[in-house]
Amino acid sequence: MEVETEPKTNDQEEQIVNPWEVSGKDGGKIDYDKLIDKFGCQRLDETLIQRVERLTSRLPHVFLRRGVFFAHRDFNEILDAFERGEKFYLYTGRGPSSEALHLGHLIPFMFTKYLQDAFKVPLVIQLTDDEKCMWKNLSVEETQRLARENAKDIIACGFDITKTFIFSDFDYVGGAFYKNMVRVAKCVTFNKVVGIFGFTPEDHIGKISFPPVQAVPSFPSSFPHLFAGKDNLRCLIPCAIDQDPYFRMTRDVAPRIGYQKPALIESSFFPALQGETGKMSASDPNSAIYVTDSAKDIKNKVNRYAFSGGQDSIENHRKYGANLEVDIPIKYLGFFLEDDAELEHIRTEYGAGRMLTGEVKKHLIEVLTDLVERHRKARAAVTDSARLGYGGSDVLLMRLCNFSTVETLKSGSIVMSYSQTIPQAVGCILILSSSSLQMVDAFMANCAIIIKDDGGLAFMTPGLSNQKMERE
Amino acid sequence: MEVETEPKTNDQEEQIVNPWEVSGKDGGKIDYDKLIDKFGCQRLDETLIQRVERLTSRLPHVFLRRGVFFAHRDFNEILDAFERGEKFYLYTGRGPSSEALHLGHLIPFMFTKYLQDAFKVPLVIQLTDDEKCMWKNLSVEETQRLARENAKDIIACGFDITKTFIFSDFDYVGGAFYKNMVRVAKCVTFNKVVGIFGFTPEDHIGKISFPPVQAVPSFPSSFPHLFAGKDNLRCLIPCAIDQDPYFRMTRDVAPRIGYQKPALIESSFFPALQGETGKMSASDPNSAIYVTDSAKDIKNKVNRYAFSGGQDSIENHRKYGANLEVDIPIKYLGFFLEDDAELEHIRTEYGAGRMLTGEVKKHLIEVLTDLVERHRKARAAVTDSARLGYGGSDVLLMRLCNFSTVETLKSGSIVMSYSQTIPQAVGCILILSSSSLQMVDAFMANCAIIIKDDGGLAFMTPGLSNQKMERE
Repeated sequence: MEVETEPKTNDQEEQIVNPWEVSGKDGGKIDYDKLIDKFGCQRLDETLIQRVERLTSRLPHVFLRRGVFFAHRDFNEILDAFERGEKFYLYTGRGPSSEALHLGHLIPFMFTKYLQDAFKVPLVIQLTDDEKCMWKNLSVEETQRLARENAKDIIACGFDITKTFIFSDFDYVGGAFYKNMVRVAKCVTFNKVVGIFGFTPEDHIGKISFPPVQAVPSFPSSFPHLFAGKDNLRCLIPCAIDQDPYFRMTRDVAPRIGYQKPALIESSFFPALQGETGKMSASDPNSAIYVTDSAKDIKNKVNRYAFSGGQDSIENHRKYGANLEVDIPIKYLGFFLEDDAELEHIRTEYGAGRMLTGEVKKHLIEVLTDLVERHRKARAAVTDSARLGYGGSDVLLMRLCNFSTVETLKSGSIVMSYSQTIPQAVGCILILSSSSLQMVDAFMANCAIIIKDDGGLAFMTPGLSNQKMERE
Repeated sequence: MEVETEPKTNDQEEQIVNPWEVSGKDGGKIDYDKLIDKFGCQRLDETLIQRVERLTSRLPHVFLRRGVFFAHRDFNEILDAFERGEKFYLYTGRGPSSEALHLGHLIPFMFTKYLQDAFKVPLVIQLTDDEKCMWKNLSVEETQRLARENAKDIIACGFDITKTFIFSDFDYVGGAFYKNMVRVAKCVTFNKVVGIFGFTPEDHIGKISFPPVQAVPSFPSSFPHLFAGKDNLRCLIPCAIDQDPYFRMTRDVAPRIGYQKPALIESSFFPALQGETGKMSASDPNSAIYVTDSAKDIKNKVNRYAFSGGQDSIENHRKYGANLEVDIPIKYLGFFLEDDAELEHIRTEYGAGRMLTGEVKKHLIEVLTDLVERHRKARAAVTDSARLGYGGSDVLLMRLCNFSTVETLKSGSIVMSYSQTIPQAVGCILILSSSSLQMVDAFMANCAIIIKDDGGLAFMTPGLSNQKMERE
């Protein structure tokens, strides 16, 4: 029997990777080979990537082609099932501890968008405002505000609004989700979470209670409004490898409560501008490019802070070439420059000393400025359309609600209330159908009625985007 | 500063009282004086009882007059506030681990009904199905079923339906309630719960996560649909003293998160038929009278199992009289025979040997048979009227929802959805008012719309009992 919750503990002193701390041995690079060995996950090899290409009939994402997503658990089983014609769903998330996201935060979402598009599958995105409230000692209200702000950035990544459900824990915990939290919590001892997460007896019980909250979105029954009757739907979790401990625990528990183990596809960490020694730090704004940075900020940060592998003089650079292994502009281009041939050209010329650091940085500044500008526009569109439709950003989260029950609706039966899923956004959403509530005006039939916090009403036809929503 | 979470630990080996274990020293009686000293609560003295009588203008409940409720925390402050014209609310609960309740289970509910009637205050009743799921290793579904069954017995105690909200954790945890759980959990370390509840590192994290769930109904902000804008409303908790550890923790945390400490009024344990050595045992059906027992069962149990303080022969009995200190029929009459003079008469005659054990038992059998019969009828009425109104017991819990916002409704504004509070019972309840939803038929205006699991609809006018509800 597979035991996943007790990773090998050799060299634990040297390299630390858990959801709250990432540091390499002696302050150096993370050794990802050792991490795979320690965590007991599998390397995402070329064969698997080729299989993805064949199954999706499209070029694999650069993050796959270039090894950003480098490890997995049972991803092959997800592909086996997909090949048999079975769907799965995606689950990813974010802990909303800061206002603005940096590029590293976008990595899982950009990759998840690719997976959603390529496999045409539903997606749930968890915003762990409760976690950040407990770990960062922020107020409930502040983490909820950050969750709403971060949700806009996530929406800006362009997910399929008919297949995506974004929720924050403070909004969504309850009902089927809470029942699964209890089912998981029953199977995990305090000693176990000490082994997995390094908790101590001096930690507060909020921390000790949290792992089941991040575990249960792995189970389709936590989302009855999305996956009713699909309890065996497989779940694939794209995430950075520091989140692996949560899902080792989840995979250990799943079969004991009659659920499928979630599969994982895991990324390395996006390097800081100053060099590749772990994750970026939110406390040092100059360590990262933020999605709120201006073109001038980006130019300044890349030129001043991006660690260069170039030589200290032009003469030496021409003679020895750049050290690509430590060069941050080259690393960043590897993430964001889509054109393989162009990237290879830059690597060759720069590595041979024929291209200078300044030229590579100029290239990177162009790529990043374009990326951030596109994100900024997409994010502004989220806000604007939400305002247009509803008069406030509070109902933003519901834009991405998946009205998966639209077929049921068409047949005239009542489906369900969405109010539990997004209580902070709306007082109540009631889906009515004409045959079961005949005295209701035709305008309201087959609509969601949204009662907002201020008492106003909005109506929404399921399956339509918010541009088509009408308001009383 | 008051430190309530570290009770004195002398003689901990001898007498054990916590939410999961009650046993006296050497298997003997519980020493309640020692318990008051150890827990650090206050004795409920005669002065306080007289004050209750004066403030409520009615005879104090037998449980007060006869010392069943014998200890408190800040009950005097509740009375101070009440005297100033400030209201409070009551909070009690039950862990639904068994189908049928015994008489001991009814004690807090009978007393709570008295408090509600006497002080005319709102009441919340928590059914901790999640706790029982975790401690008794029952399935989620089984504990939910037990919660619904137990709710009928609780409703049968006759609470004011316009002022009472019964919920189960699996139904209600979420939203404002969950936010308060997180706020509490942040303030309590693992070491602390080890000290309070005796958890060990081998306990599962479900147990460690639970104390905040039982804590937060002490805070009015956990019930925004009942107490919106009344964040300083005081809470009074009637309970058996074994629940004190939960509320010691709650009172310790409350000021740190800006909330009022709940006050407590605490009872001794109802003795088993076999004698007064702690709480009754659900595993031995002959140790207790159940509310489902027939008149024949009651007669048989009292005659066969009720421990007698009478002498072993009539001659000796006439000569020495009964030992009232250990006599269970006398104890039980002390709980359930309302007439003080009659009780005193029996005590005197029996204690002097002029009345025999058989006569006392006969008296007790009459009292208990009448009590259980009245309960049985009241419980049947709950079920029947629920069936009449809704076609199923699933919507039972909502009968006692407090439509506290009825004034708001009358003024024409939309209030809120109740669906989050009782999702298992109803798909959605939407309270509509004519001015804000003009296309809705007059029949529906100012109504609650209840969508049942089977897709049927029901309508309910707020503030009316279910007899007056109409159904499509």
